[in-house]
Amino acid sequence: MNPKRPIWYLPEKDLVQVIDQRKLPHVYEVYDINNCDDTVYAIKNMVVRGAPLIGVTAAWGFYMSLKNKTSDDESVLELEKKINGSRPTAMNLFYATKKVKEAVLKENSPEKRIEAAKRTAEEIEAAEIFNCQKIGEFGVSLIEDIYSYKKDVVNILTHCNAGWLACVEYGTATSPIYHAHEKGIPVHVWVDETRPLNQGARLTSWELGQAGVPHTVIADNTGGHLMQHDLVDIVIVGSDRTTVNGDVANKIGTYLKALAARDNRIPFYAALPGSTIDWELEDGIRNIPIELRDEEEIKYIEGLGSNGVEKFLVTPKHAHAANYAFDVTPARLVTGIITEKGIARAEKDDLLRLFPEKRYNR
Amino acid sequence: MNPKRPIWYLPEKDLVQVIDQRKLPHVYEVYDINNCDDTVYAIKNMVVRGAPLIGVTAAWGFYMSLKNKTSDDESVLELEKKINGSRPTAMNLFYATKKVKEAVLKENSPEKRIEAAKRTAEEIEAAEIFNCQKIGEFGVSLIEDIYSYKKDVVNILTHCNAGWLACVEYGTATSPIYHAHEKGIPVHVWVDETRPLNQGARLTSWELGQAGVPHTVIADNTGGHLMQHDLVDIVIVGSDRTTVNGDVANKIGTYLKALAARDNRIPFYAALPGSTIDWELEDGIRNIPIELRDEEEIKYIEGLGSNGVEKFLVTPKHAHAANYAFDVTPARLVTGIITEKGIARAEKDDLLRLFPEKRYNR
Repeated sequence: MNPKRPIWYLPEKDLVQVIDQRKLPHVYEVYDINNCDDTVYAIKNMVVRGAPLIGVTAAWGFYMSLKNKTSDDESVLELEKKINGSRPTAMNLFYATKKVKEAVLKENSPEKRIEAAKRTAEEIEAAEIFNCQKIGEFGVSLIEDIYSYKKDVVNILTHCNAGWLACVEYGTATSPIYHAHEKGIPVHVWVDETRPLNQGARLTSWELGQAGVPHTVIADNTGGHLMQHDLVDIVIVGSDRTTVNGDVANKIGTYLKALAARDNRIPFYAALPGSTIDWELEDGIRNIPIELRDEEEIKYIEGLGSNGVEKFLVTPKHAHAANYAFDVTPARLVTGIITEKGIARAEKDDLLRLFPEKRYNR
Repeated sequence: MNPKRPIWYLPEKDLVQVIDQRKLPHVYEVYDINNCDDTVYAIKNMVVRGAPLIGVTAAWGFYMSLKNKTSDDESVLELEKKINGSRPTAMNLFYATKKVKEAVLKENSPEKRIEAAKRTAEEIEAAEIFNCQKIGEFGVSLIEDIYSYKKDVVNILTHCNAGWLACVEYGTATSPIYHAHEKGIPVHVWVDETRPLNQGARLTSWELGQAGVPHTVIADNTGGHLMQHDLVDIVIVGSDRTTVNGDVANKIGTYLKALAARDNRIPFYAALPGSTIDWELEDGIRNIPIELRDEEEIKYIEGLGSNGVEKFLVTPKHAHAANYAFDVTPARLVTGIITEKGIARAEKDDLLRLFPEKRYNR
């Protein structure tokens, strides 16, 4: 695979740019992040999406916001608050802005504060790349194991896009897949289209296609049937937020796939960087706030028609719709959690085995 | 509710017409059924859809085909075979054509054969209307029970369209809902959009809107989350084919909702006419053939854009997709089966209690 990235910093222009993911796969466009408004717009309107990329974008956006503004303590705290307000569920967002804020507040001069923001954004980005690489190295063992006894194409089901478009390189859920593909293990990916925003049909399919990984797009309704008929060997999804007990908040519909995997004795893994784990949260279903987005995203679907890319109406014009963006898969349905530190069972003790520093440093 | 119908016979023109459901809710068009080709086209291309309506259309189509053709035994058998070839899963289709064929073959003259076909089509239609009415009368008790202790709006989740558009009047899964609404019980329906063909978003939403029943369209991914948060009181779906043991073949994705209902202790009912039960089939997952439809139905979604109703590309142009049309929900996940004879547990003995004649007449 020729590694690609959804975000980059241009030193010569002192500018951050991202791929505008809203019109993929039909149109490739780049979006400039100049300031706080651009940052909030990009995250809120899903120019960028995916927990790790949201974090990296928030960090770079914090830097871009700060460098053209006063950087007194109050302004820094206000910036953090504004950027955090862009999406309510993504743990990485809060993690990234907190880290930038803390680094900034340690410095006294405006110049040093801006420099600290930039350095922290670079660090967060480098850490995400490292994490995705390690998630792939650990996760590929699961696919290798299946191949070692199946001796035939390993069928992997994934939901939404937890690929490099959602991260910086390799992705989270896709990283074990890319690593398997690079090692020559024959894999085939069932790509949930992932309504309502079709991140699977639009983005995961595009990404896997670029990398030459065999895959098939399916309606989100299909996974249960495939599992009943032995057409899925393993499910790997990402996570936007994970509780200390192993509950996984991910794109709406993930829970249904986990139920089907359990019913058919198919392993179900969540692949995620440690930054996604909320060490203070125990009960995901009760305590993770679920974003309720605009009903228009259900009623109108974006696609390529005879007038180019546009939004078209699917429901009756005056129908109501409800657009919950995430759901929570309880830990009891999660076979394991693939992190940059190794693979854990979905439970507190085993997660703490991988992240022992969290025993003390909460 | 002002009853409406998706199919009718015009005596003055000796012609059968159906609502062309492919462009609803945006465009209302009528499609003429003149002969066998029209019948096969209408069923295969989903001008009409829904198990009971497919049966009624097949019966009327048999009549329209026969009246302009030679009606010797061989032609009659060939007609049955041709019409049966239009959709592989719908039990009502085979049931209807078999009934017409048997009535026709009993007669000797071409005139009497044509007359027998017409009479049988009328009988099948009348029986479907009666069945839907009775399914509503039995099923409404479940909603009344919930209302009696909840004393607040009863939230019903349904998948696909098992409404009057799928039947002739009232529908199957929607019949208890329409009956509750008519009785003044406050109901609210969560309408699964039902990818890939969006029968929920397009048809159920339109139907319920016509009848003034409060409802909200949701992505198919959403039901599990709603159930985790006590926002669903009962699930009622239709069935295209039901085994003698209570396995239910219905639109792809039904199985996932049944799993979620079970995981959250929510009653899950299938509403269906007895004609949908295949008394010779035991294991639905192994033995019900699942139609694999054209991948273009996944890649392209129909909607209303700036150029009118057209199909829009959602995936990358060269992506592959797989389009399984149904799945099988095993009986262990089905709380009960609502039929025109009453409500049964999803098991052979209890189904035979309602249809005792099937003990002998198989």
